[in-house]
Amino acid sequence: MIGSEIEQLIKLLSRLPGLGPRSARRVALYIVKKKDSFLGQFIKALKEVEEVVSICSICGNYDSQNPCHICTSHKRDSSMLCVVQDVADLWAMERTSVYNGKYHVLGGNLSALDGIGPDDLNIENLVKRLSSGEIKEVILALSATVEGQITVHYIADRIKKTGVKVSGIAHGVPVGGELDYLDDGTIQTAINARREI
Amino acid sequence: MIGSEIEQLIKLLSRLPGLGPRSARRVALYIVKKKDSFLGQFIKALKEVEEVVSICSICGNYDSQNPCHICTSHKRDSSMLCVVQDVADLWAMERTSVYNGKYHVLGGNLSALDGIGPDDLNIENLVKRLSSGEIKEVILALSATVEGQITVHYIADRIKKTGVKVSGIAHGVPVGGELDYLDDGTIQTAINARREI
Repeated sequence: MIGSEIEQLIKLLSRLPGLGPRSARRVALYIVKKKDSFLGQFIKALKEVEEVVSICSICGNYDSQNPCHICTSHKRDSSMLCVVQDVADLWAMERTSVYNGKYHVLGGNLSALDGIGPDDLNIENLVKRLSSGEIKEVILALSATVEGQITVHYIADRIKKTGVKVSGIAHGVPVGGELDYLDDGTIQTAINARREI
Repeated sequence: MIGSEIEQLIKLLSRLPGLGPRSARRVALYIVKKKDSFLGQFIKALKEVEEVVSICSICGNYDSQNPCHICTSHKRDSSMLCVVQDVADLWAMERTSVYNGKYHVLGGNLSALDGIGPDDLNIENLVKRLSSGEIKEVILALSATVEGQITVHYIADRIKKTGVKVSGIAHGVPVGGELDYLDDGTIQTAINARREI
């Protein structure tokens, strides 16, 4: 006996990542209750995203302009390129503001299990970008999973032929991490990658 | 360096109940990625809710018509009235399809702490509805919290004067509940409210 309009909204909301049927209902009720103060703004924001946001043809980021703000920025180091799996990872890197170079979004990791090969990822464009000679170092900031590391090795192999320096982000004990709570793999990696103090 | 349109969307999404900054970013990224397959439908659904959904002037439910489908239905028992705290509770009752009467949404519970008195709730309308004489029984389906039970007693006192039968939903061990995992209050209530078999 819920109105069909609200039911349709709940159905769409439950397709969003992290929302199940119960949380979708809760969100729908919030939206209906805040019809005057929230819904108008929300629709406007969604429409703006629909109208202006597109994928950057150089790096694969989402932005209101193409090429994106990062690719066209003169304040950023064009000799550094950070390769990430997804736009979410690019955002995570940007939040730390520790990196001031440019990016390249792969769109996934190599995965034999899921049938994702090199042609399914944004790798050819990466190699093309390196051929201009402007980029001096590539940082592979991919997940520390099996698929991530296979991708790291594949890309490193491809890039080494071009003579560009390739590095991978460090793996080890996360900041604030207690050894007692870490898995064997992390501790093993941390010992193997130990550095002189 | 996230586009301002996407940032505005993330800001609004993080106001939704159950979504924090991280999950709001995740949802925003999903929306941006599914611009063609999802976003159009989503905006359409939100617009429809904005246009047609309103609050029922009789019971307080949200629906595309006023009075709502439940209040105007001839298939439902007009002699029974179920009083709930919120529309979410009405939806929960409807999902069980165990109840076939009409509803009355209070809009909250009495709470001295939050400064919510009888005038802040939809109680006067409830008393008015009872004066027509059509309603024979009122079921108070409110939370088993201190505020909920204070509200139950207040409303029961008000209604008893009109001569209408008042009942409250049963409290005890939930179905599937194991005694070992239940709190003392629930077990105590269940023992005090024991029934002969």
